[in-house]
Amino acid sequence: MTTDHERLRRAETAEVRSEIRAGRYRAHTAGLGLGFLQTNLAILPAAFALDFMRYCQRNPKPCPLVGVSDTGNPMMFTLGRDIDIRTDVPAYNIYREGRLDHSTPSIEDTWRADMVAFALGCSFTFERALIEAGIPVWHIDNDRTVPMFRSNIDTVPAGPFSGKMVVSMRGIAADRVADAIEISRRYPLAHGAPVHAGDPDAIGISDIARPDWGDPAPIGEGLVPVFWACGVTPQVAIETAAIPLCITHKPGHMLITDIPEDAEVPVLRPTS
Amino acid sequence: MTTDHERLRRAETAEVRSEIRAGRYRAHTAGLGLGFLQTNLAILPAAFALDFMRYCQRNPKPCPLVGVSDTGNPMMFTLGRDIDIRTDVPAYNIYREGRLDHSTPSIEDTWRADMVAFALGCSFTFERALIEAGIPVWHIDNDRTVPMFRSNIDTVPAGPFSGKMVVSMRGIAADRVADAIEISRRYPLAHGAPVHAGDPDAIGISDIARPDWGDPAPIGEGLVPVFWACGVTPQVAIETAAIPLCITHKPGHMLITDIPEDAEVPVLRPTS
Repeated sequence: MTTDHERLRRAETAEVRSEIRAGRYRAHTAGLGLGFLQTNLAILPAAFALDFMRYCQRNPKPCPLVGVSDTGNPMMFTLGRDIDIRTDVPAYNIYREGRLDHSTPSIEDTWRADMVAFALGCSFTFERALIEAGIPVWHIDNDRTVPMFRSNIDTVPAGPFSGKMVVSMRGIAADRVADAIEISRRYPLAHGAPVHAGDPDAIGISDIARPDWGDPAPIGEGLVPVFWACGVTPQVAIETAAIPLCITHKPGHMLITDIPEDAEVPVLRPTS
Repeated sequence: MTTDHERLRRAETAEVRSEIRAGRYRAHTAGLGLGFLQTNLAILPAAFALDFMRYCQRNPKPCPLVGVSDTGNPMMFTLGRDIDIRTDVPAYNIYREGRLDHSTPSIEDTWRADMVAFALGCSFTFERALIEAGIPVWHIDNDRTVPMFRSNIDTVPAGPFSGKMVVSMRGIAADRVADAIEISRRYPLAHGAPVHAGDPDAIGISDIARPDWGDPAPIGEGLVPVFWACGVTPQVAIETAAIPLCITHKPGHMLITDIPEDAEVPVLRPTS
């Protein structure tokens, strides 16, 4: 946690975005804008947007669709006041032909008139709910990144987008697994209920100590490994599709919206 | 209720669709395929599909997106086994330049390689839940069509699609309004919680006895008029956009899917 992070922990969502836009905050967003949805980000040329949107609709657990920009309009007006998707995320990854080209704190130079931005829900929301219910989350308590694995679960394809589902793992006490399922299911815009609890091998994970992304997390005595659909899934689908240009957030560096976590629908009414 | 309807009340969803496809059943679908999602239908040329999908994403209460076909592929494979959207709905309305051209029991001749089919959730699901909770629904008990009104609530526009929200009204006993809100909120794919309860004038409805669509329903002593977002909203948006060709279901003649009403996500896994 940086001093900057401490300073912004109690700030309003608009103030956090304003600091990010001004270039004064470029670190991860965990713990910021508490109570409001944070999102993963994928920005693609319009030629691929309908297929990508279908991919999200067909795979709502890994890719919960929270907001979609107009083509060429960087203002995400359904997700908050004055959100400019070119500048209001702390760090972006630029992919060309499916490969990471570079990271950057602003995409003003890369944005084009044919771009469409997709905001997809992330796990911060249900993790907070688990913690509030007294279910500890090891990687948060130990300031690590959640362990993520490529599972053997197929996603439902759409156009060039397809692939296996990436899952994130949290070790949950056996007597709280049912609670964890019930609590996270309340947040369909944050991956919803787990896709699997128990034997990692059943979903094609041979070594739980060696995640494909993130840091290993120990499965302590009495804990059950519980697996949630993960927002890295669409990133892998985009890489596999090898489209000419795609922009994502840098992992952990999310878009902070003005949508309350418990909102029935993730849409800020234009008049409100 | 026709004899045909009685015969199909206990049939499996696949059998009902098979009867419809064969032309042996052409009436309304209320009460059929109990326990499974039924959907409204909008089929548009791909040139308008991304904007229409954005319109649905931005207005999830009137337009809850349940399924989207591949472009030119009439098989709605995420919603059930062997659903051919050209033949498996009992009656279709064909619109040209925003005007109703004709109704037809099959669109095999009208379907084109650039068509995209959208299935949108409908109110049958939450109405059944209300009735099971002991909350009577007058228009069902009296075999009428629910009264629908053009409200003064703006939808969030996307491309050529915009307009006021259409709402449906059910009179609910004052001491059950909170229950009705809580119950229907559990079904986000069936319009979710009401958008308004109480004074019709507050949402621009001047005469509750004269609905814009459907049949009038009396507001008995002790009942509160409760308004839900209605699936006629996208139909009005499509008419207003006056796109060259659009196909919808004929009201009441819905698509019966294989998705259980209480499914966490409306997607049939390809392998299941």
